[in-house]
Amino acid sequence: MSILVVGSVAFDSIETPHGAVKNCLGGAATHFSLAASYFTQVRVIGVVGKDFTAEHEAIFTRRGIDTKGIERSEGLSFHWTGSYSGNMDEAKTLGTDLNVFETFEPKIPDAYKDSEYLFLANIDPVLQARVRSQMPKVRMVCGDTMNYWIADHSANLAKVLRELDVLLINDGEARMLAGERNLVVAAEKVLAMGPKTLIVKHGEYGATAFFSDRSFTGREKALRPFRAPALPLAEVVDPTGAGDSFAGGFYGYLASQPELTPAVLRTAMFYGGVMGSFAVERFGTERLQNVSREEIDERFKLFLEISHLEHAGV
Amino acid sequence: MSILVVGSVAFDSIETPHGAVKNCLGGAATHFSLAASYFTQVRVIGVVGKDFTAEHEAIFTRRGIDTKGIERSEGLSFHWTGSYSGNMDEAKTLGTDLNVFETFEPKIPDAYKDSEYLFLANIDPVLQARVRSQMPKVRMVCGDTMNYWIADHSANLAKVLRELDVLLINDGEARMLAGERNLVVAAEKVLAMGPKTLIVKHGEYGATAFFSDRSFTGREKALRPFRAPALPLAEVVDPTGAGDSFAGGFYGYLASQPELTPAVLRTAMFYGGVMGSFAVERFGTERLQNVSREEIDERFKLFLEISHLEHAGV
Repeated sequence: MSILVVGSVAFDSIETPHGAVKNCLGGAATHFSLAASYFTQVRVIGVVGKDFTAEHEAIFTRRGIDTKGIERSEGLSFHWTGSYSGNMDEAKTLGTDLNVFETFEPKIPDAYKDSEYLFLANIDPVLQARVRSQMPKVRMVCGDTMNYWIADHSANLAKVLRELDVLLINDGEARMLAGERNLVVAAEKVLAMGPKTLIVKHGEYGATAFFSDRSFTGREKALRPFRAPALPLAEVVDPTGAGDSFAGGFYGYLASQPELTPAVLRTAMFYGGVMGSFAVERFGTERLQNVSREEIDERFKLFLEISHLEHAGV
Repeated sequence: MSILVVGSVAFDSIETPHGAVKNCLGGAATHFSLAASYFTQVRVIGVVGKDFTAEHEAIFTRRGIDTKGIERSEGLSFHWTGSYSGNMDEAKTLGTDLNVFETFEPKIPDAYKDSEYLFLANIDPVLQARVRSQMPKVRMVCGDTMNYWIADHSANLAKVLRELDVLLINDGEARMLAGERNLVVAAEKVLAMGPKTLIVKHGEYGATAFFSDRSFTGREKALRPFRAPALPLAEVVDPTGAGDSFAGGFYGYLASQPELTPAVLRTAMFYGGVMGSFAVERFGTERLQNVSREEIDERFKLFLEISHLEHAGV
């Protein structure tokens, strides 16, 4: 099944305790697409400038990602500059040059209209809603957002939330959106805003799925929350895009399955963790460009080993 | 098998968003003993003052806990005053009245000398070492500590660490002890200080066990880390003693098993989470005094359900 993703395709300049890179390909849609491409067909909608070359495009196409929806515009691509220090659990944004992204108006190619899965990466909720409304027959919609939209664009965001099957955000965003410190209570409040299922990412501590009675068809009672681990890593080279890579692994696996069942959703969370753990091993998208199916399978088994009593290989 | 625990038996005055209590029975040894008592025989070494009544003692003896080693002294018992707010993930200490604990000199009754499992709760490492040296034939030693001892009593603490089978501390303590922000690297450094196994508690995000090549006999290679979940709770009435209750469930289960295997240790971490989740449901030790075996079994299954792909009951 095809996933249509709308979001940023950007260049990042990043500094971490392990080094620095300038103008490497990044953006939420990029990390998401690469991670999801190991599971299913991906189509991207975004905008880039003249600095986006054939070499950059090949990073997508080598993974079989459809780039027809990446619009070329005059000017420069979106550029993010950030740094990480200490525990590297939060980026310090040093610069956000929207450039061509400032006037971005998503256009959906006709060839994309039959996409069954839609991912609304973290962009202006007005644009998210506009894309959503142009895909009325989509089977499932998953979305992300961030503090900036929660704080200052809440009315627009509310409209997007009402249309979501799955909302994927981090702890701080979930607490902020709900205005509530307890995560379980916050999750209930967020689910009441519309999303059928909420997945809260905890960075190095994994992720938790919270369910409503609308999460799965044919189930009247909401399931208990489900917790998926993150891999303890001795070296995180660059955390940029880890959350988007989690989303890509998660949604890519979901889209590859015939039906959304509780077991499929749980397994998808593990694949999310798997792809997130690869993403942070190198700067930018370097690692996500070259993962083998064997490495993915092996790491999935590792996730079972570190979390399951009886899958310990001992 | 019997566990001998040395630590504080105290009175706590606690304020949380759910209410306040004055002078309720608390202390690390108390929470630990009650939690462990559901799995094995427990013997306590501590000191109390004249304010410790027959009713307080009955809280232990009703659970079959041996109180012979709780010394009665002139003066008042150790008294801790604290409050929690917001996410309740950290206590604010408002008062620490050591009282009779200030001159505490642990004495081990002869009847306790055959204890096979020793738990050194969070007290002065000089006292921890003194108790350890009087129990030369003990089969396993597990210990806790805190920021205060790590910062200002590191030489004394180092002696204790060298003798530990398992060290049970939280994230902040592990990072502080190692002088390292990355948790995996911090764990390697802590294991190099002596403990065969390190368990790092993450509060609402569960706990991770880090292993060395000395964790289990007959295994030359260290196992991968293991992550156990915490139960997502909509209401935490009082987090006081959650970590000690985790330790009690963990160590109580270990002591009830014939042998320390990787599978036993993993299962013990789940029981640690189970007892910690009960502890926070009521103020003080109220909930830990009255848990049924059925409730423990049911909650253990719940921990599997929220963390295991194939134990979902779906």
